[in-house]
Amino acid sequence: MHALLQNIDSPKDLKKIPVSELPHLALELRDFIINIVATKEGHLGASLGVVELSIALHYVFNTPKDKLIWDVGHQAYVHKILTGRKDIFETNRQLGGISGFPKRSESEYDDFGTGHSSTSISAILGMAIASKLKNHPNLNHIAVIGDASIASGMAFEALNHLGETDANVLIILNDNAIGIDPSVGALKKYLTNVKKGTAKEENIFECLNINYSGPIDGHNLDTLIAELKRQRQLKGPRLLHVITTKGKGLKNAEEDQVSYHAPGKFDVVTGEKYPKNAEGLPPKFQDVFGHTIVELAEKNENIVGITPAMPTGSSLKFMMEKFPDRAFDVGIAEQHAVTLAAGMAAEGLIPFCNIYSTFLQRGYDQVIHDVALQNLPVVFCLDRAGLVGQDGPTHHGVFDIAFLRCIPNLIIFSPLNEVELRNIMYSAQLGLKQPIAIRYPRGRGVTIEWKQPFSKIEIGKGEILNQGSKVAFLTFGPIGNMVSEVLIEVKDPSLYGHYNMRFVKPLDYTLLDGIFDNYEYLITVEDGSEKGGFGSEIMEYANQKQYRGILKRFAIVDRFIEHGTIQELHEICGLNKKSILEYLETI
Amino acid sequence: MHALLQNIDSPKDLKKIPVSELPHLALELRDFIINIVATKEGHLGASLGVVELSIALHYVFNTPKDKLIWDVGHQAYVHKILTGRKDIFETNRQLGGISGFPKRSESEYDDFGTGHSSTSISAILGMAIASKLKNHPNLNHIAVIGDASIASGMAFEALNHLGETDANVLIILNDNAIGIDPSVGALKKYLTNVKKGTAKEENIFECLNINYSGPIDGHNLDTLIAELKRQRQLKGPRLLHVITTKGKGLKNAEEDQVSYHAPGKFDVVTGEKYPKNAEGLPPKFQDVFGHTIVELAEKNENIVGITPAMPTGSSLKFMMEKFPDRAFDVGIAEQHAVTLAAGMAAEGLIPFCNIYSTFLQRGYDQVIHDVALQNLPVVFCLDRAGLVGQDGPTHHGVFDIAFLRCIPNLIIFSPLNEVELRNIMYSAQLGLKQPIAIRYPRGRGVTIEWKQPFSKIEIGKGEILNQGSKVAFLTFGPIGNMVSEVLIEVKDPSLYGHYNMRFVKPLDYTLLDGIFDNYEYLITVEDGSEKGGFGSEIMEYANQKQYRGILKRFAIVDRFIEHGTIQELHEICGLNKKSILEYLETI
Repeated sequence: MHALLQNIDSPKDLKKIPVSELPHLALELRDFIINIVATKEGHLGASLGVVELSIALHYVFNTPKDKLIWDVGHQAYVHKILTGRKDIFETNRQLGGISGFPKRSESEYDDFGTGHSSTSISAILGMAIASKLKNHPNLNHIAVIGDASIASGMAFEALNHLGETDANVLIILNDNAIGIDPSVGALKKYLTNVKKGTAKEENIFECLNINYSGPIDGHNLDTLIAELKRQRQLKGPRLLHVITTKGKGLKNAEEDQVSYHAPGKFDVVTGEKYPKNAEGLPPKFQDVFGHTIVELAEKNENIVGITPAMPTGSSLKFMMEKFPDRAFDVGIAEQHAVTLAAGMAAEGLIPFCNIYSTFLQRGYDQVIHDVALQNLPVVFCLDRAGLVGQDGPTHHGVFDIAFLRCIPNLIIFSPLNEVELRNIMYSAQLGLKQPIAIRYPRGRGVTIEWKQPFSKIEIGKGEILNQGSKVAFLTFGPIGNMVSEVLIEVKDPSLYGHYNMRFVKPLDYTLLDGIFDNYEYLITVEDGSEKGGFGSEIMEYANQKQYRGILKRFAIVDRFIEHGTIQELHEICGLNKKSILEYLETI
Repeated sequence: MHALLQNIDSPKDLKKIPVSELPHLALELRDFIINIVATKEGHLGASLGVVELSIALHYVFNTPKDKLIWDVGHQAYVHKILTGRKDIFETNRQLGGISGFPKRSESEYDDFGTGHSSTSISAILGMAIASKLKNHPNLNHIAVIGDASIASGMAFEALNHLGETDANVLIILNDNAIGIDPSVGALKKYLTNVKKGTAKEENIFECLNINYSGPIDGHNLDTLIAELKRQRQLKGPRLLHVITTKGKGLKNAEEDQVSYHAPGKFDVVTGEKYPKNAEGLPPKFQDVFGHTIVELAEKNENIVGITPAMPTGSSLKFMMEKFPDRAFDVGIAEQHAVTLAAGMAAEGLIPFCNIYSTFLQRGYDQVIHDVALQNLPVVFCLDRAGLVGQDGPTHHGVFDIAFLRCIPNLIIFSPLNEVELRNIMYSAQLGLKQPIAIRYPRGRGVTIEWKQPFSKIEIGKGEILNQGSKVAFLTFGPIGNMVSEVLIEVKDPSLYGHYNMRFVKPLDYTLLDGIFDNYEYLITVEDGSEKGGFGSEIMEYANQKQYRGILKRFAIVDRFIEHGTIQELHEICGLNKKSILEYLETI
C-alpha cells in the first residue's frame, strides 16, 4: 500500500527516491498518518501541513549531522516517520511508546526536545555557536517555527541575538496563520501583508539583520527542494518564509483547522470525527470555566478574560463570542498576558487570566513582580494542572503548587469538583483584594448537575467531608474524589477522616488545629510535586505546632513523568487507590 | 539655590513655570539629584538622562489622571521629585524611606511598580483597555521604555498585541544605547540606523502597526514639549523615538556610563567617585566568579559564559575581555539565555549561564523544559541570591530555592564562602552529567586568601564544621558564617553542631541520618523563602525518617521584604544572630 514509504527507514533511504516521485511519497505519508491518528488519536493538522517540508528538509540536508529543530514539536510526525520510527509510530503518545514530541533520548535525529513553543531559535543558535567553536563551521542549523510561535517574546529575543551573529542558522517560518487557534497580533497581520507582496521592502526580519527569502509554496516539492538547496549554499542568519496549510490533504482538517489540531478518533474515509458520547457524563472543567465566566460577566461588567493562545482549549472562546470587547486572546505571550492583567486590575477591572499550569512557568516572574508584589486582584485560572496524560513531561502541570506557594499575597485554591470551581470563580469577583490562583485539571469532573446557584467560598476555609478518629486524609483539589473512593473500600470507615482543604494558602489553621488534636495519622494527597507542594505546606504547619503523629504524603514523585494515560501515570507515581489502600494496611 | 524647584510640589506647580524657564529647572533638578545621590548613593545616570523628558511629560500631560509608567524604574527620580517627593528624596532606598523605583503604594503618580525591565507596555495597554471599558476613552496612557528594555521578549509580546488594538497608548522609546551595560542585539543596530536616517522607510514599529515618530532630541525642551503636545492630539498606538544621553549633565557620568549607572558616593564638584577602600577586605563573590571562570576557561575549551545584560554586575566581563568568542551578553533576554545554554550543552559545550536570582524568574520555564527535562549539564550561576538590600522587593532573590527545588534532575548548591564557589565551579566542569544551580549573594564573602588551588566538591556531600551533642545547625550557603558567629557567643559550645550542607538537592542523606540520630534539635538557616525552601527539604526528609526531635527553621518570612540594608532586612526577618541566640535561650 505504501510502496515508497515502506522502504524508508532513514533519510538515507529517502534520498534514493527520485524527486519526481516525492509527491507520491507525500500522499503515502498523509495516508499513513491519517490512518494511525484516526484510531490512536494525536496531533493531526500540524504534521499534515509540513509533509512536503519534512521530506524536502531530510532530502536536501544531511541529518543528523546537520541539526534540525521542530518548534513546538507536534508538527514532527513526518520527521519521526522518516527517521526510523515508522514501525513504532502507532505507539505514539502511549505509555512506553514514542513521544508525541521530538525527544533527544528517542532518536539521534531529535536534536532538541520541544513541547512548549518558541524555543527552537535559541536552541539552534546555541548549537550553531557550538559548531563554530568546535570547528565544524560547515554544518547546517535549521529551526522550523510557526507564525504563531515566532510571535512569542522568547523567539524575538533569539532573533535579536541571532541577527548580530554570523551563525550559520536557517529559520524556516512555517506560516499557516494558525497555532492551535488562529494566530493573532500585529506580526501576523504584517506577515499577511508580506504574502500579498505589499510591504516586502519593509521587511521586519531584514530590520533585524536576518536575510529574508520567500514567501514560497510549502506544498510544492520542486520549489522547496530548489530553495533549500540554494539556502544550503548560503551562510549566516537567514529566514525562509514558507506558506503552508494546516491539515493539508484532509478536507475536514483543512476546513476546520482548530478542531482537527488534535481531533480524537475519526473516520479515515470521510474524515468525520466520531461523535464523543458525552451524554450522562460530568462536564469538563474547561467548559465549566467557559460558561461560568460568561454567566459572571453578564452581571459584573468589570470582569475581563485573557488567554495566551488557548481560547478553544480553555473555553474562553465562549466569552470571546459573547463579549468580544472584554475577552482577549493575546497569542503565545504568557509574560504579556500576566502583566496585561496586572495593568487592568490596577485600574479596577477583574481580569480572569486563564493559563495552562505548565505555561504559567513562562509568566512566573510577572506573577511575582507585577501581580503579587503589588497585591493586584488578578484571578489566575490554571488549567491542565496535575498530570495531563499523553502530552507527557513537557506539558504536565505538576510544579505550580511548589512554585506559587513561596509567593506572598497569593491565594492558592483547587476545587474538589465543578461546583467548587464555579463558586470560587464567583467568590473571586466579589471584591477580592489580592490575587488568587485556581488550579484544576484537564478533563471531566464528577458532578453532572454542576450548574447550581452560586454560593460564596470563604477564603482559607476547608471543609470536613468525613469525620474520623485515627487517620485524617487532607486533600487538595479533585484528587480528593479518589480518596472518597478509597474510603468506600476500607474495613472500618469510622477510623478515617477526610478534609477537603481547598486552599494551600492560606491554610485553614483552625480546622488543622482540630485535626492535629484528634488524629494519629495525617495523609496528604495532591497531584503536584512532592517537593514543596501542598503536603509540605501542611508539614510546615504541623511542624510549627509540634504535631507528634505520623504524616504521610501522596504526591507526584520527584522525576519527570513520561506520557501515558493519566491513570497509568498516577499508578507510576503511587498516587492511586491501590497504593493508598496498601499504605493503610501498614498502619 | 533651587529657585524654581523649591516651589514645585506637584505637576500643577510645574505647569505654572513658563516654557522658557524650564531649561533652568532642568539644571536645578540635575544639581538636586547629583547632590543627594553623591552622598546617599543610588542610581544616577538613568535619571540624569531623562530630566527634560520627565519635565516635558508632566508639563504636557495631565498626570495622575493620564497614566504614566516608567519602565525599569531607576529612571524615575525626576518623576518622583516633581510629584511631591522632593523633600523626602534624601530617604531614597533607605529603610522606611522612599523606594528607588516607582511604587503604587507610595504615590498616586506611580501608576505601576517597575523594577524588572520591559513590563511597561503590557501594563499600560492593560490600563488603556480598562479606560476604554470604563468609558474614559480620552485619557492618555504613556510608557517610557529604554532601548535595552524594548528589545526584551516581553516588550515585543506587548507591542505585538498593542499593534492590533486601537488603544490610546504612547510608547516613548528612550534611546540612549545603553541599559546598565551597552545595549546589544540586532534591534539596537537597527535603531542606530534609524537615527542615521538611512532606514526610516523600513520601520520595524510601523511593521507592527504602531505609528512611529522621531527620532527627536530628548534634551531639547522646546522640541519635546511641541512633539508631546502633538502626540496628545493623536489616537491609537504610537511610538515616539527620543534620543537621550545617559548621565547627561555630569561629565564623568556621560563618559563612563556603566560605572555611573549607580556610582556609589562621589564628589559633587569634580564628579570623581570616591575610591572604595577594599584593601584587606574579602573579595566580592561576583569577582570570584568572574576571575574563576576565566581561569577555568583557559584550561577547558568547552566552557562558555552567558549573561543576559549583566556583564559588569556579574563580572562576566572579565571573560568577555579575555575570550570574546566564548562569552555572550545576550541582552535583557533571560528566556533566550537559558535555552541558548541548553542548545550549547546539547552539543557538548559547558555553558556557565550567569543570571541574577530574581531575573531567573524570567527564565523559569526554560530551566524546566529545555534544561532539566533534557538533563543538559548547564551550570547556572545565580548571582544576588537572598536579600539584596536597597533595591528592595523587586530585586530580592529569595524565591529561587523554593522554585528550583521541585525541578527533577537539577542540583542546587550554595557555597559557604569564596573558596567553595571556586571549587564548585571547578567541579561543575569536570564532566557533570546534569544541570546545577549555584546560588550566591551580592557582595563580599569572608575569605581574603580566596585564590586557592582547586579541589573537587563531591555532589551531594555536606561537611561538618562543628560536632555537637544536642542542637545541630544545618546551614545553606554563606549565611552559615552568621551561625559560626552565633556559636562563638553561646555558653556551652560543645552542645552545638554545625553542618554546612552545601546542597539542597541532592541532600547528604548519610550525613543527615547521623544527625537525626544524635541531636534533639535541628535548626536550619537559609536566606531564602520559608515556604518550601532548604528548611522544608530537610523537614521532608526528617519526616520521612520519622525524626522525633524539634526542627526550627530560620528563613525569609512569607511576605515581600522592603528595601534597606541587608542587615536591617535580616533583622526584620528574624534572621540574625540576636534572634538565633534568643531562640537558643528557650531550649
